[in-house]
Amino acid sequence: MPNPQLNQHGELQHLLALRGLPRDVLVHILDTAASFLSVSDREVKKVPIMRGKSVFNLFFESSTRTRTTFEIAAKRLSADVINLNIAASSASKGESLLDTIDNLTAMHADMFVVRHAESGAPFLISQHLNTTGRHHIHVINAGDGRHAHPTQGLLDVFTIRHHKGDFSRLQVAIVGDILHSRVARSDIHALKTLGVPDVRVVGPRTLLSPEMLQMGIRTFNDMREGLRDVDVIIMLRLQNERMNGSLLPSAQEFFRNYGLTPERLSLARPDAIVMHPGPMNRGVEIDSAVADGSQAVILSQVTYGIAIRMAVMSILAGN
Amino acid sequence: MPNPQLNQHGELQHLLALRGLPRDVLVHILDTAASFLSVSDREVKKVPIMRGKSVFNLFFESSTRTRTTFEIAAKRLSADVINLNIAASSASKGESLLDTIDNLTAMHADMFVVRHAESGAPFLISQHLNTTGRHHIHVINAGDGRHAHPTQGLLDVFTIRHHKGDFSRLQVAIVGDILHSRVARSDIHALKTLGVPDVRVVGPRTLLSPEMLQMGIRTFNDMREGLRDVDVIIMLRLQNERMNGSLLPSAQEFFRNYGLTPERLSLARPDAIVMHPGPMNRGVEIDSAVADGSQAVILSQVTYGIAIRMAVMSILAGN
Amino acid sequence: MPNPQLNQHGELQHLLALRGLPRDVLVHILDTAASFLSVSDREVKKVPIMRGKSVFNLFFESSTRTRTTFEIAAKRLSADVINLNIAASSASKGESLLDTIDNLTAMHADMFVVRHAESGAPFLISQHLNTTGRHHIHVINAGDGRHAHPTQGLLDVFTIRHHKGDFSRLQVAIVGDILHSRVARSDIHALKTLGVPDVRVVGPRTLLSPEMLQMGIRTFNDMREGLRDVDVIIMLRLQNERMNGSLLPSAQEFFRNYGLTPERLSLARPDAIVMHPGPMNRGVEIDSAVADGSQAVILSQVTYGIAIRMAVMSILAGN
Repeated sequence: MPNPQLNQHGELQHLLALRGLPRDVLVHILDTAASFLSVSDREVKKVPIMRGKSVFNLFFESSTRTRTTFEIAAKRLSADVINLNIAASSASKGESLLDTIDNLTAMHADMFVVRHAESGAPFLISQHLNTTGRHHIHVINAGDGRHAHPTQGLLDVFTIRHHKGDFSRLQVAIVGDILHSRVARSDIHALKTLGVPDVRVVGPRTLLSPEMLQMGIRTFNDMREGLRDVDVIIMLRLQNERMNGSLLPSAQEFFRNYGLTPERLSLARPDAIVMHPGPMNRGVEIDSAVADGSQAVILSQVTYGIAIRMAVMSILAGN
Repeated sequence: MPNPQLNQHGELQHLLALRGLPRDVLVHILDTAASFLSVSDREVKKVPIMRGKSVFNLFFESSTRTRTTFEIAAKRLSADVINLNIAASSASKGESLLDTIDNLTAMHADMFVVRHAESGAPFLISQHLNTTGRHHIHVINAGDGRHAHPTQGLLDVFTIRHHKGDFSRLQVAIVGDILHSRVARSDIHALKTLGVPDVRVVGPRTLLSPEMLQMGIRTFNDMREGLRDVDVIIMLRLQNERMNGSLLPSAQEFFRNYGLTPERLSLARPDAIVMHPGPMNRGVEIDSAVADGSQAVILSQVTYGIAIRMAVMSILAGN
Repeated sequence: MPNPQLNQHGELQHLLALRGLPRDVLVHILDTAASFLSVSDREVKKVPIMRGKSVFNLFFESSTRTRTTFEIAAKRLSADVINLNIAASSASKGESLLDTIDNLTAMHADMFVVRHAESGAPFLISQHLNTTGRHHIHVINAGDGRHAHPTQGLLDVFTIRHHKGDFSRLQVAIVGDILHSRVARSDIHALKTLGVPDVRVVGPRTLLSPEMLQMGIRTFNDMREGLRDVDVIIMLRLQNERMNGSLLPSAQEFFRNYGLTPERLSLARPDAIVMHPGPMNRGVEIDSAVADGSQAVILSQVTYGIAIRMAVMSILAGN
């Protein structure tokens, strides 16, 4: 079965998930992002690559931060950006998701950046566009349910490549609420495809995903064991709003067992880097001394995130 | 009495309603829109006609879809667009409508796109601008109460002209909640001015407007009679939010009597087109088989709507 | 102690408050604004000064009007503008103010326009940027608590200079709720620095600020005494939302004692001008006959406000 994200020439047509994307597609995105890093440092932070293109930010689930990163990336590519908070509009008038998409494509949309609480919504949109012959319109998944957050996964591996150079000898630990995390899922697929030999997840038994075992991921319930000698620690955000209460005793207890403190960080390799997708809950999943310490590369992730989004948009627009 | 939308040279200064607009003004807008259709198909979907102009979307009543169409149209004309959701801002601080307008014109606004729940609000604004000598500032009515929605009326007649060529032999049926519909009102005025000999409205007695009789419009309560041999069917949206309950038994009963099904559509001419201003309530006023069928031109309406709005804005900006 | 708004060369790096700003810095802003006044009158109302710069409107307290003026100013300077209503976003996810700032600067923000209900928030942000070496990022205070609203103060003195030419012989009365007014505070500092010999405040005893006495400001409880022979009257907005009820009997009683009526205005000099920061409460602090009368320069203030904001942004971006 061909990957639904690739066109018949094997080029990226939509970015829906990192699972199953060929290594050369990932590397091409990372290399393109590297070339965009300098644009944001220029006096005039703009390139004309998407001038006159219409990018729609379709946020069925609100996320000011993620929306902002895509808006900045699109504007630096000179695109016209239209922000639609769909939760508050047509959806409430009873219009279906695909009717909304049909209407916006009739307005000559070029690209949809889609955030949705339901897993699979961006895929559904991309299939609808493909089966109706609108192959020139591109979909980027900006986070769907518990499924995937591919641009976050890409910026995470970009950050790792930037700091560690080579993927082939790395030990990477992902810590926290794996069960609800689309970030963890996207990170794992990217790291595996890029050849990281040891990807492990660390967290309370109730928040680990059974799916991990099938993916050949080692799981740890003990933070100290999980972090030993790793090169990279990816802390996840504890998403209170996603939990039903029964899975987790309290934020305080979570910190006691899984919060990243300087002591625990010292179990990793001395040159280990600490990552977090943000926004951070200081004192819940991460201690401020670590968040602001010399091993944290959390703000670099944000910077690289703009370059990654510019890369994905420009590659899609060119295919 | 001169038409308050025209300046002393008979040129369009504001677009408030289609009632009373001369035929040549309507045709000029349609012809200009035709020339803009190609802009949205270009690689770079922009023309510099309104570069440096400030267009304010003043939405006193929220409508993401309509606001988006005006935003896209203005950006493709290279204008700067400022979206103001007035319901949530100064209005709540007790400032009057005209004080808001005075403030925005003091910021050198060039054009106001106004949506308001009260009929006549755009007219009030235009009169205020004219009587205070600010003739270079233009108002576009984006829907006011039950009164008018002139750009919708224009895109509807554009769609009809595109598919039928000539207005002079057409039978057009408008179906549904005529009483509350500013779309119906604008459509009827445009169709009459352009010479359509048979414009008819179809709907339950409680949702037909007495005003129709004065306008020489035939009214039908029976859907089958009303649709017989027509060339164009314009289905209206059943606006639940506007109804008080007593006028309509239920959505199911409405569909049973007035929903456009394939069977009912077959009573019209074989080449009849089906239109809808959107967003559609599938299964209430229209059956999905019709909405997605070969006679539906509903998405073309959306595409033409961008061209119409670009045409109106550019004509106003040039006068 | 050096002024925290100035860099080591004495140039404006942030605009946080007018207190303590040297006279030549104020005059330079006013002169620059004068040169920008003509831009808004041009056919193409744009200059390329900030092309490719990213300006973030960070509104922790919502204010559509003020946000709009900064958005227009930035767009006329060709900057990319990102509006963030922070009250509704990350803040609610528990992220701290400074984490939000760190994230946005990691996206290569060039300028923050900050409105916050807490006095000192813009100062806190500017200090955080300076102490972490990010001297190329600029902060503009768009109103913080009861503390300051410097661009309003600047546009007020611009308006006075425009109409009165010289500051050295003026009598200026500021009338109303001085206690809660950041506008009054900014006006007073600017007027003092620019050499106005008689700045006075007029209002009920409960709404006058003890701080005024220290600043050498004369206070009046009697409106008729306070207005006698003044050249400039600055009426403040009665901010109901800021008052706790106990300080003020009622809006009607306020108008009876301190509303600016034609009769009271006649006590001032015949060529006195009337100013108001907007939005006006007609019939509360100002009579419509005065608000719409020949001595009112309230809408000129709005126009000059755009030029002042363009001036401040362009000066900061150049330093």
